[in-house]
Amino acid sequence: MAARLGILAGAGELPLRVIEAARALSRPVFVLAFEGIADPAVVAGSAHAWVRLGAAGEGMRLLREAGVEELVMAGSVRRPSIAGLRPDWRAAKFFARVGLKALGDDGLLGAVIKELEGEGFRIVSLESLLPQTLAPEGALGAHVPDAEAQTDIARGLEVARALGALDIGQSVVVQQGMVLGVEAIEGTDALIARCATLKREGRGGVLVKIAKPGQERRADLPTIGPRTVAAAAAAGLCGIAVEAGSTLLVDRAAIAAAADAAGIFVVGIAVP
Amino acid sequence: MAARLGILAGAGELPLRVIEAARALSRPVFVLAFEGIADPAVVAGSAHAWVRLGAAGEGMRLLREAGVEELVMAGSVRRPSIAGLRPDWRAAKFFARVGLKALGDDGLLGAVIKELEGEGFRIVSLESLLPQTLAPEGALGAHVPDAEAQTDIARGLEVARALGALDIGQSVVVQQGMVLGVEAIEGTDALIARCATLKREGRGGVLVKIAKPGQERRADLPTIGPRTVAAAAAAGLCGIAVEAGSTLLVDRAAIAAAADAAGIFVVGIAVP
Repeated sequence: MAARLGILAGAGELPLRVIEAARALSRPVFVLAFEGIADPAVVAGSAHAWVRLGAAGEGMRLLREAGVEELVMAGSVRRPSIAGLRPDWRAAKFFARVGLKALGDDGLLGAVIKELEGEGFRIVSLESLLPQTLAPEGALGAHVPDAEAQTDIARGLEVARALGALDIGQSVVVQQGMVLGVEAIEGTDALIARCATLKREGRGGVLVKIAKPGQERRADLPTIGPRTVAAAAAAGLCGIAVEAGSTLLVDRAAIAAAADAAGIFVVGIAVP
Repeated sequence: MAARLGILAGAGELPLRVIEAARALSRPVFVLAFEGIADPAVVAGSAHAWVRLGAAGEGMRLLREAGVEELVMAGSVRRPSIAGLRPDWRAAKFFARVGLKALGDDGLLGAVIKELEGEGFRIVSLESLLPQTLAPEGALGAHVPDAEAQTDIARGLEVARALGALDIGQSVVVQQGMVLGVEAIEGTDALIARCATLKREGRGGVLVKIAKPGQERRADLPTIGPRTVAAAAAAGLCGIAVEAGSTLLVDRAAIAAAADAAGIFVVGIAVP
């Protein structure tokens, strides 16, 4: 039997997918759930403990006491201010060394991983545990982008790559060649909601979501789920394009069903 | 006496500033006000006519009948969809040639200017009529950015330049090194309002607004006014940095007074 898997649980359903995958392999888990971020319903059925995001020393102690050697990060963690973090001694030592303000999201997550490795933990990627959840190339449902949507996808890809290179965000919405909105810290759901009020008449826009170039794949891959599809449809978008091989699908079958029900496309695209 | 000045009036107070500047020079004006966009109160006191944005043929006829040879564009015009534009024959001919969808905002405005020049109009820049309204280098009010704010300004500048190079937007908000938000089509006011809900604890962020590289200066310079300052203060920002020499100040004295009243800085920065 494999060693106990530690799960650092952020927001959303992804921690549950990891718990289910481990259960299918009869692999025991221990969930370290971040207060105010993880969903209590998601962690309730497994061995778990709650910890403040800033309480790094306590978190590491809990993981060691639970016998965890291998760790996975699952679910988004909104980046707090240092004041909001209330770092304990161990976290403060970390921040003093890496300099929080000098880092973008990627740099910060990479530094956290390096720190945990320095403490003797092995960090594995979500995709190694959930390989079937990475977006394939091509359409997930019955609908495919037409030539006009493909032009919007190409423009969105150009913009998203530039945003990613600056470590700003992963998503962009393009309609009829116009960039309706660009994601920074607000997240994809807020971007989609905003674009509902910004859209022009005529055919709807496209959400393009890709990994940042050089993104730490063990920390923060782009993710979509059936709720993303429903939100996109409600906002009048005609489809979603995600990076094939680098986007986590939280319930692939449900995504395809939601896309078909809404009459929009969800497509995995190869990003060079 | 100089020839009659034609003013293509978009939204906001800028057309009024041009009208006032022309009046101070005893120069007659004719205002072509775009329906649903220009402010009726702004154009009411001057010779003017209303026209749909898509009615290019009628607009040119009105300008010629008014004896206009020299034109200035003043005030923002939100880019419509082709369907929302309802182009007349003359506008449709233009769009058929330039291909609306292939163009960003800059490309479109540049094409409009070229088209008007092809019809025999001279297009002059706002800054040639309102030179005293361009932001100078340095602080406009009593407050100046400290070292931490300067770090945020530098990050904002880096991001805004990349956005501008992609013809996406002019503005970005950075707090404690984090990019809180990036402007696309929603405009600066909506960006500021959104960042009020995204901000972290601790010191406030900075709005950075600059011209796009290669921006057509006769069409669309970045603009701020006292309402921008009030909105930034209400959203918890600690200041505003704009590009010196390329940002229009709608009422410089009122901007400085609003900044001092709110306790925030407004500073013009040299952009290399």
